[in-house]
Amino acid sequence: MTQPLRFALTPGEPAGIGPDLCLLLAQQAQPHPLIAVASRALLTERAAQLALPIELLAVAPGQWPAQPAAAGSLYVWDTPLHAPVVPGQLDAANAAYVLDTLTRAGQGCLDGDFAAMITAPVHKGVINDGGIPFSGHTEFLAELTHTAQVVMMLATHGLRVALVTTHLPLKDVSAAITPERLQRVTRILHADLRDKFGIERPRILACGLNPHAGEGGHLGREELEVIEPTLDGLRGEGIELIGPLPADTLFTPKHLEHCDAVLAMYHDQGLPVLKYKGFGAAVNVTLGLPIIRTSVDHGTALDLAGTGRIDTGSLQVALDTAYQMAASRTARG
Amino acid sequence: MTQPLRFALTPGEPAGIGPDLCLLLAQQAQPHPLIAVASRALLTERAAQLALPIELLAVAPGQWPAQPAAAGSLYVWDTPLHAPVVPGQLDAANAAYVLDTLTRAGQGCLDGDFAAMITAPVHKGVINDGGIPFSGHTEFLAELTHTAQVVMMLATHGLRVALVTTHLPLKDVSAAITPERLQRVTRILHADLRDKFGIERPRILACGLNPHAGEGGHLGREELEVIEPTLDGLRGEGIELIGPLPADTLFTPKHLEHCDAVLAMYHDQGLPVLKYKGFGAAVNVTLGLPIIRTSVDHGTALDLAGTGRIDTGSLQVALDTAYQMAASRTARG
Repeated sequence: MTQPLRFALTPGEPAGIGPDLCLLLAQQAQPHPLIAVASRALLTERAAQLALPIELLAVAPGQWPAQPAAAGSLYVWDTPLHAPVVPGQLDAANAAYVLDTLTRAGQGCLDGDFAAMITAPVHKGVINDGGIPFSGHTEFLAELTHTAQVVMMLATHGLRVALVTTHLPLKDVSAAITPERLQRVTRILHADLRDKFGIERPRILACGLNPHAGEGGHLGREELEVIEPTLDGLRGEGIELIGPLPADTLFTPKHLEHCDAVLAMYHDQGLPVLKYKGFGAAVNVTLGLPIIRTSVDHGTALDLAGTGRIDTGSLQVALDTAYQMAASRTARG
Repeated sequence: MTQPLRFALTPGEPAGIGPDLCLLLAQQAQPHPLIAVASRALLTERAAQLALPIELLAVAPGQWPAQPAAAGSLYVWDTPLHAPVVPGQLDAANAAYVLDTLTRAGQGCLDGDFAAMITAPVHKGVINDGGIPFSGHTEFLAELTHTAQVVMMLATHGLRVALVTTHLPLKDVSAAITPERLQRVTRILHADLRDKFGIERPRILACGLNPHAGEGGHLGREELEVIEPTLDGLRGEGIELIGPLPADTLFTPKHLEHCDAVLAMYHDQGLPVLKYKGFGAAVNVTLGLPIIRTSVDHGTALDLAGTGRIDTGSLQVALDTAYQMAASRTARG
């Protein structure tokens, strides 16, 4: 297996900052061949708007590059727009274009053309306005790859946080923390930390659901009735699990030093501290897919498209994470 | 009003680290007279166990000191134990002792003997085992001072987080976020930031309840139906409020730089990031009381009592915060 690792990069919403990020990033050489799955016309136009010098190198299936592009150049698998793009102005006519880029990148990962895909932000609303039901990258890729359960994990230097539930109203969270879901999510987290991050014996710190992890049942009984017995069962499968611990004291050096990931029960329990710690340098990783997918942790920032006043920090971390994950996976064979 | 400000310090659970913290702290001079409301016998014994030199100076109502104690000495308002204490061993016989110290300190604040009280941790379980219904310092002091609504706020350098709901099971949080509660809590937070912290025009950043603050109703409707209209009404009263904002992106410099406090809707939305940021140096402040009360943010640490392996960081911040609050309040007259 000495085949070079190639990576697909999707710029996402064409009126947002995704194209800008790709062009800025390409000013520096990458360690692997990186292929933007995007409209060549869009990138050419945006580069002119940003006054960025760029050489776009055409590639396509069967004509993949073996070497990384030099600084100032970017491989592009040309994927046509459906309508011209004005930075900052959403146009539902390009909804299908956005999904074309994701399908090409995702299918390319499944086919072995790409070792991983890295995604810039899409705009869910305009895709739905385009008549295509779409609830996010994660769900789209789960369907494309026939994956029943995926896990959202955010990571930054020194901290990884995976979520048992994600985009649910808070009042529905308790009922969604079932033994089955907790088992599925924990097993995926454990398997992917091992197989995609190269951690031989991952240690996972689980949060409780309630304040003070329920304080022995005084502040809620889900820990006693669902979480503790389920974690006990998972320990019996050989998964190293600590908790459930109170979320407000778990994110301290004493606990974090010896763990590979925190398992939070819901979105706002785990992500505020991760984004506080990793401000501008956090990455979103979808676990459970048969492919490797990482993403920036920010939105389309329509108002900044074409201005050049943007920070490639999160995209760089998303790329670095994908490179590391692909290397770990290859090493495990 | 040139009367010196005096402060009451309650060591809390006698078998825990509270007495140790007071003795360690007294090794350094304080800027104001600080009076431990505690058993003199307990402090003498614990000092011997810790091999700490200490001079205990007896004070009592009508005999308050005018000057701070020197380094290595501590004013004590002797409050008798009901049973001897072994470090680390809870004894329900001393439940009433713990409440005696709180009553003396709280009533002393009401009577103007003390400018503020600073509390070390108590152990709720053993007080209840002693036959006294007790759900925490906060509730006890609310009752003592006939206060209908109090607000829990944690603070550390550069960040204050107040909570709309505190020790509730997560599944009950949504129903507890009523317009009435949100109004009461926000008004108290605003008034105390002004009156007890000396902030002329406090700016408050409010979190949403749901992930992404409900994303326009897609992830929950409490923002649209309760939080936004209530905050609008409060703005009409002249309270400067920003939000509701998504909790996972609110705790970033862009937002925090220009705010005096974050209003979180529930415990684990706001406290993980505060305790991560303020590790070992966070303070718990009860707002809404007619008195000033600050507290350490940690527990009794029974296993460390009598060992000397403890950190006075949080207690020092609790003291410093109380000193500052008392000064702000005095300055406002």
